[in-house]
Amino acid sequence: MSWESRFGGVPTPAVFVDLAVARRNIERFQAYANAHGLAVRPHIKTHKLPEIARMQLDAGAIGVTCQKISEAVAMVDGCPAIRDVFITYNIVGEDKLARLVTLARRVRLAVVADSMAVAAGLSAAFAAEPEKLRVLVECNTGADRCGVASPAEAAALARRIAASPGLAFGGLMTYPPVGATAAVETFMRAAKALVEAEGLVVPVVSSGGTPSMMSAAEAPVTTEYRPGTYVYNDRSLVARGVASWDDCALTVHATVVSVPAENRAIVDAGSKALTSDLLGLTGYGHVLGRDDIAIDQLSEEHGRLVSTRPIGLSVGERVRIIPNHACVVSNMVDEVHLIDVNGTIARRPVVARGCIA
Amino acid sequence: MSWESRFGGVPTPAVFVDLAVARRNIERFQAYANAHGLAVRPHIKTHKLPEIARMQLDAGAIGVTCQKISEAVAMVDGCPAIRDVFITYNIVGEDKLARLVTLARRVRLAVVADSMAVAAGLSAAFAAEPEKLRVLVECNTGADRCGVASPAEAAALARRIAASPGLAFGGLMTYPPVGATAAVETFMRAAKALVEAEGLVVPVVSSGGTPSMMSAAEAPVTTEYRPGTYVYNDRSLVARGVASWDDCALTVHATVVSVPAENRAIVDAGSKALTSDLLGLTGYGHVLGRDDIAIDQLSEEHGRLVSTRPIGLSVGERVRIIPNHACVVSNMVDEVHLIDVNGTIARRPVVARGCIA
Repeated sequence: MSWESRFGGVPTPAVFVDLAVARRNIERFQAYANAHGLAVRPHIKTHKLPEIARMQLDAGAIGVTCQKISEAVAMVDGCPAIRDVFITYNIVGEDKLARLVTLARRVRLAVVADSMAVAAGLSAAFAAEPEKLRVLVECNTGADRCGVASPAEAAALARRIAASPGLAFGGLMTYPPVGATAAVETFMRAAKALVEAEGLVVPVVSSGGTPSMMSAAEAPVTTEYRPGTYVYNDRSLVARGVASWDDCALTVHATVVSVPAENRAIVDAGSKALTSDLLGLTGYGHVLGRDDIAIDQLSEEHGRLVSTRPIGLSVGERVRIIPNHACVVSNMVDEVHLIDVNGTIARRPVVARGCIA
Repeated sequence: MSWESRFGGVPTPAVFVDLAVARRNIERFQAYANAHGLAVRPHIKTHKLPEIARMQLDAGAIGVTCQKISEAVAMVDGCPAIRDVFITYNIVGEDKLARLVTLARRVRLAVVADSMAVAAGLSAAFAAEPEKLRVLVECNTGADRCGVASPAEAAALARRIAASPGLAFGGLMTYPPVGATAAVETFMRAAKALVEAEGLVVPVVSSGGTPSMMSAAEAPVTTEYRPGTYVYNDRSLVARGVASWDDCALTVHATVVSVPAENRAIVDAGSKALTSDLLGLTGYGHVLGRDDIAIDQLSEEHGRLVSTRPIGLSVGERVRIIPNHACVVSNMVDEVHLIDVNGTIARRPVVARGCIA
């Protein structure tokens, strides 16, 4: 039975997730992590779905990673099996700190800090709590986003966190750039040694990122890994050579609404479905089975497909698109369509969609 | 009273809309259109809010433009004053055609078609309806998205629409590229003449786009104009020289969560708030009052601010960002904060957010 006839009843654009592919992706990294003694703590930002978090935990994940408190609350509400949450974000502001306290009473919780300004806010919020909040020091291993700049700064901040009322030093965390495994090892090992020289234990050294995950063990200081996109994969990961189209669990189904020229067609998936994320690529996605087609332009509701030859598509025909970046697509839609091993389709609300605050 | 103290109670990232600025933007174009005998039919995609649609109608708009049926339904539900809707999209597929029929029973409705394949679907859906559906022929005046390629094709399709059961030929429509006012005049005048030579009346010639709106009258064949972004403006329009920062009604408020280097700061607005839309620009937004700062990188929850000099921001401080593209920001958030002339803030759900199907 063709995919068109199986899924043709679903109005487009629509996001489909093949659960068998997602499960295979989850199990592949879990097996690698098990073989190398790494704990797995998947980032839920890619799927934002309790059902997939449950699959990750069942496969052996020790907990989940979230970026925002609101995401974490949505996931914990939806999946009681989530008992351990790491929010890899500097939590700043009274409203957020109050919500963090509430969340900490529900699950085993850790957060990060890369400055004493952030740690001081956390300390004030947790000083009166019966249980200390675990705070990991975020380290900049080359991504130049957040993070302390040197192992010495990491150790100094660790010491101050350990001395702060309501806080416990929880370890070291980094989100490295792609291919920076050696830099992770150098920075984190030096930071760990300096922290230990302060008389502190470093319970966790946490790293992340799907593109480099299969070489995570080449930074043996790492104790925990936080892959996100690996569960779905996407065009950016295929372009990096770390996944094939068959490993892509998330597809956007779109309908051709216009064929205004011989080599051009317009589909009903634009930036509101695929997003404008390029991740260094040219074009906005891959049309499965059609290597000749580029998606060269998006407006909000239109995707422009151009081919090097007659495009051979008709109005009403459907195409399946692998987006450049799967995570951001999950954030665009209120619901996704899960395909189970029997081919049954189930609609599921994306419970942690839009959780920006 | 500083904006920080007025709005500091709202958790970030958050989207604010200054209603006085929006009203001034609406009235400015309405006055131009009135002076030139143009009907105004604003595109609701920019705001997705019944309250703003009402302001546009009160100022003199004849109706609204929507891109999707679901958007139109959300807007009509939220704003009963909307009695006239133009959906500038090829409606394809049984589910959508059924919803279109339902909507047509509620409001005065028109849609477009750029092929007989689209028109045939519309005709089948409306053949048994008591009232005909008005269908405008979409013309390609250089944007190379949808649209028939020549005036002759426009006339041929107009004739076939007029002869189709359930359909009435409603006129000509185009979404031109920026600065193509002369091309609009040439194409649409020729198409109109050919349609009239078929014995048909061309009730409407509809064009759109904010960047060229103040020269809309230089294509006198145009009877109706569909501006969208004009109500909010954004960094792309300031870059084009058609608006100033003071004309920007939509701002994204963000909090500094990290200042990891002397010339770098990280805010809590990433691509989930600002989106990755570049619209030909470098960087992802403008920090008001800080011409020295570029937002050079976004990840989902982090915006990276870099300055040519010491950045001088502190953790917890707030900044206001004008996004590259206002419309797509409205689509990212469940609610916006409307600021009225008294400075009162009202939260409003973005009722037409996420309406992709």
